[in-house]
Formats: sequence, structure tokens, C-alpha cells
Amino acid sequence: MELTDVKRKLAVILAADAEGYTWLMHEAEEPTLQTLTEYREIINGLIARHDGRIFGTAGDSVVAEFGGAVEAVRCALSIQEELAVHNMELSDDCKLRFRVGINVGDVMAKGDDLFGDAINVAARLEELAEPGGICVSASVFEQVKHKISLSFEDIGPQAVKNVAEPVPAFRIVPGSVSVATPAETRSA
Amino acid sequence: MELTDVKRKLAVILAADAEGYTWLMHEAEEPTLQTLTEYREIINGLIARHDGRIFGTAGDSVVAEFGGAVEAVRCALSIQEELAVHNMELSDDCKLRFRVGINVGDVMAKGDDLFGDAINVAARLEELAEPGGICVSASVFEQVKHKISLSFEDIGPQAVKNVAEPVPAFRIVPGSVSVATPAETRSA
Repeated sequence: MELTDVKRKLAVILAADAEGYTWLMHEAEEPTLQTLTEYREIINGLIARHDGRIFGTAGDSVVAEFGGAVEAVRCALSIQEELAVHNMELSDDCKLRFRVGINVGDVMAKGDDLFGDAINVAARLEELAEPGGICVSASVFEQVKHKISLSFEDIGPQAVKNVAEPVPAFRIVPGSVSVATPAETRSA
Repeated sequence: MELTDVKRKLAVILAADAEGYTWLMHEAEEPTLQTLTEYREIINGLIARHDGRIFGTAGDSVVAEFGGAVEAVRCALSIQEELAVHNMELSDDCKLRFRVGINVGDVMAKGDDLFGDAINVAARLEELAEPGGICVSASVFEQVKHKISLSFEDIGPQAVKNVAEPVPAFRIVPGSVSVATPAETRSA
């Protein structure tokens, strides 16, 4: 068998999942599903608004591709800002806090599906994010640092499971600045 | 928002993923994708043949529901037998060994998607399986023990991440017996 139907391309990958989802689902299934459903609708809408495309979902996790790092980071900021507002309405033991990781890399496209090391690294970066936070690779940081006014925390090269070389990573604290995007009229 | 479109039902959940996939994808992307593609076609075909339905995939992982535990276990055995044959053709550092977990429980169905603690437990059971092996919950064991001639290893109650109570679990060693299914003419 040959991989005749596989094309390589550069992509920006955003991976998100909810901290403590499994535990919440164990403790209170229906309220957790209700919150997850609501939050996933918000996330899906924001990904679409920022021209992203979801190519993988499983329970609480979402993986999407973007054409550029700036839109991916803006999308992640919008997700965290909007979910933070909704979490304020929930008691502490019901809040669903998403972590977001963003990476850029050369991936393999097979139909609508994407594969490759760059996607796994995005998922690992997501695990390095704080609940409600965003963690990006150095390559994402380089692409956005002069384009979005944000505070980045350099957390240095991170040993990442199943990846030989440490991955230099940066954390963004959402809410530290307001970010203008063409689609959002609340700032300009 | 109310969960008006959610229905509860009893389902048998099979979760599978490949041990070492992330590392293999890091080391050799295109050969790993080639093997994964081939193996996923085998897995998808066997799930369909055993009347299962896939409702989640992400990279190397597959989650499917079955109407009964016997068909789910037969499917898992067929998957491991068939992949073992294919792995013999690959060098040790290229083999893709799937782990399979099977659980039965009451889940929440929302459209084609399924949610609930029972699904998370299936994923945890899968992590307790050996590469190339199958791990099932005690409830699955009870349903199949008199219907499939198999050796089960009682590994006792397992502490499972994010689940309050230990989950009693049993391992099956594939290849220990041959399993006849109506759809498979090689045994009868």
C-alpha cells in the first residue's frame, strides 16, 4: 500500500480539552454534559468565525486547523474570554475550564483528516497550559509576537512525552489584554 | 438550556488505541501513517462486521458502541488476531500494537454522539490492557464468561484516574483460543 492520497502541508493546529472533565462526568453526568454541550457550541462557533476547521473531537477534546497563527491565537483568546464569563455563572465544582495548545508544523492531510507529529505536539502543549489558559510553541510565538499585543511567559524548553527534543513553549494569560479582530466589533 | 435531545441507554463501549503511536509518529511519520491507515481499515471493517458503530476517532484512537458484550469481545479478539498477523510482517520498531478496553454502562446519547462516565471507564480499561491485549470490566466479564470460551485473568479492582471507586477488571490474552462467529467461516 502506498500513501498516494496523502498530501503534506503547513498547518496551525489548535488542541483544546477541559481540565477535570472525566472527574466531573463521573460526579454529575447530566449537568456536565449540559455545560459541555453549551461550551462546545461556543468553541465551535468561535473556531468557525476565525476561519478554523475542526478535524477531530472526542468527548471534551477538540482539534482544529487554522490557516495562520494569528487567527488561531485570537480564536483561543476569544474562547477563553467567553468561557470565563460563562464559568462565573457556575459554582466552583461545576466549572469547566478548557486548556488550549497551539502549534505550527508540517502535517499529512488524508481526506479531511490530518496526521503527524505536529498534532501530537499541539496536544502536549495543551497539557502544559493552565486551566483557562493557552500554551503555544516557540514557532507560534515568533509568528504572532509583533502582531498581537499580548504578554507571553517564556516557560523554556519543555520535555514532552514521546517527543525526542524538548519543545520551547510560551504561556499566554487570557484576559491580560483585549484583542481586536475584524469580526468582533466590541473593540477596534 | 435543557438537555431535551439527550436519551439515556445501556451500551457496550469498546475503546482502542495504539501503544507508542505518538513516538512512532515522531520517529517516522509517513510509514506510521501508512500502517495506521491499513490497521484502521481492518479495525473499521471488523467493527462493522460485528454490528458495532464508531462514534469517535482521533489519530490512533477509536471508540465504538455495540449492542451486546459478546459481539464486542468477539470483535476485539478478531482485531487483535488480525493485527498480530500484520505486525509479523513489520520490523519491531514499526509494529503498531493496539490496546482494547471494553465496558458496559448507561450512557447519554445526543445525536450520533455518546457521553458519560462509562465511556471514560472504557478508555481507562484500554490503558490497563497489554499492547496487543484486551481488558474488560467485571460487568463485561459476567456477560460473556459462559458464552465465549476464553481465559480471563482477574487483575482485581483497579484504581482508575478520575473515577472514585476502583474498577474490577479482567484481562484477556488474545490468541489463547479460537473464537467462532457466524460471520467468520474459518471456524464453525
